[in-house]
Amino acid sequence: MSSAAIIVIGNEILSAKVQDENGPWLARELRDLGVELRRIETVPDEVPLIVDALQRCLKSARWVFTSGGIGPTHDDVTIAAVAQAFGRKLVRDERTLLLLRARFGSELNPARMRLAEVPEGARVEFHEGYLFPVLSLENVVILPGVPSLLREGFTRLRERFRQAPIFSRALYLGLGEGAVAEHLDATVARYPAVGIGSYPRFDEADHRVKVTFDGRDEKEVRAALEHLRALLPRGAIIRED
Amino acid sequence: MSSAAIIVIGNEILSAKVQDENGPWLARELRDLGVELRRIETVPDEVPLIVDALQRCLKSARWVFTSGGIGPTHDDVTIAAVAQAFGRKLVRDERTLLLLRARFGSELNPARMRLAEVPEGARVEFHEGYLFPVLSLENVVILPGVPSLLREGFTRLRERFRQAPIFSRALYLGLGEGAVAEHLDATVARYPAVGIGSYPRFDEADHRVKVTFDGRDEKEVRAALEHLRALLPRGAIIRED
Repeated sequence: MSSAAIIVIGNEILSAKVQDENGPWLARELRDLGVELRRIETVPDEVPLIVDALQRCLKSARWVFTSGGIGPTHDDVTIAAVAQAFGRKLVRDERTLLLLRARFGSELNPARMRLAEVPEGARVEFHEGYLFPVLSLENVVILPGVPSLLREGFTRLRERFRQAPIFSRALYLGLGEGAVAEHLDATVARYPAVGIGSYPRFDEADHRVKVTFDGRDEKEVRAALEHLRALLPRGAIIRED
Repeated sequence: MSSAAIIVIGNEILSAKVQDENGPWLARELRDLGVELRRIETVPDEVPLIVDALQRCLKSARWVFTSGGIGPTHDDVTIAAVAQAFGRKLVRDERTLLLLRARFGSELNPARMRLAEVPEGARVEFHEGYLFPVLSLENVVILPGVPSLLREGFTRLRERFRQAPIFSRALYLGLGEGAVAEHLDATVARYPAVGIGSYPRFDEADHRVKVTFDGRDEKEVRAALEHLRALLPRGAIIRED
């Protein structure tokens, strides 16, 4: 199973103070890597809700990425939630602690010490040239919420998640969904391994429906597209890509 | 309980073909209406996953808004999922059927007839000047995924959800989170009814941390802000709003 789930953690997203960039960015990265994203959950900074989301995501996906809730303040509870979801206690990571001592010296207060706390057994990966390590525990990757830091952290690990590519094709139709549904149904029934989506437009676009075909087997994807093409009335296809 | 949850339904979001606009837009609307958004779940076009999300959201929020999965094609399964979540069967809405007959005449095929199917007992609200009705069942509001249609549908109902406003204030600090965490903890402990968030910046902004204070009681929100202000070292506050 080469699938993933994302948990976006933060009251600021739910209260619309900040628009989440991390979910859509990770979705694009995972797609490029051939990883099927199964769900995104956006939850508040509350341990029980994060634990619940983790447990559900772990059941449905091979990799779970968390975004946000990392830091020294009261609303940074992601590390504690991940530890709890796996029944681990929190321990100090000695290498992180050394770095914090070097950076803060006598200003290393209890809040900053929290930055060295990790779930017992977590992987703490330092990379040359970067200040902060990337944390993971089993198949949960714990990423910071600040978009630039999340992108940097994910990028350091990204090749680890690469799968066989997903092939994608699309037909743009001049007919409405109601006119093509029957042909879509026939194509879906014939090519169960191909993900087929139908997206109507109600604006001034050159087409009324975009039909997408996705799958790991390029030949099957093409065959599904050709199957639909053969069923459609002449002139229905505006363009394809 | 004046809270809400959003379920965004669509493989196209998870596969990053389309970036969801509806979750962030609804989050802003709900905030303006004083409604606390508790979670957003983005799930595939699969009935069991939508039913699971609905059941969870109904437990944690008064209102649940679904986005997407409405239409005549095979991947439009939201109506069926809502019916299943409430143990209702699907029935034909007669008024919708009349409108479809008027519009499509002899081209009213089985796919288009599906547009008249609603969970038994659903509210089907027509509004003067609009083509499509807004569907809801108990406290689930079923909105289309096309952003312009979702906005139009929600706007027709929006005043129904209005609550007492949420007051919000913010302090922008020149200190890092590690230097203010202790004072934040003290303020959080003293004002449990105020939601306090701490958001670090690592870019060229004029501040290093934004601290937000949210609550229904304006006096409490202000008192929490003043409490933190009194604890902070002189010069720590860059600006406020």
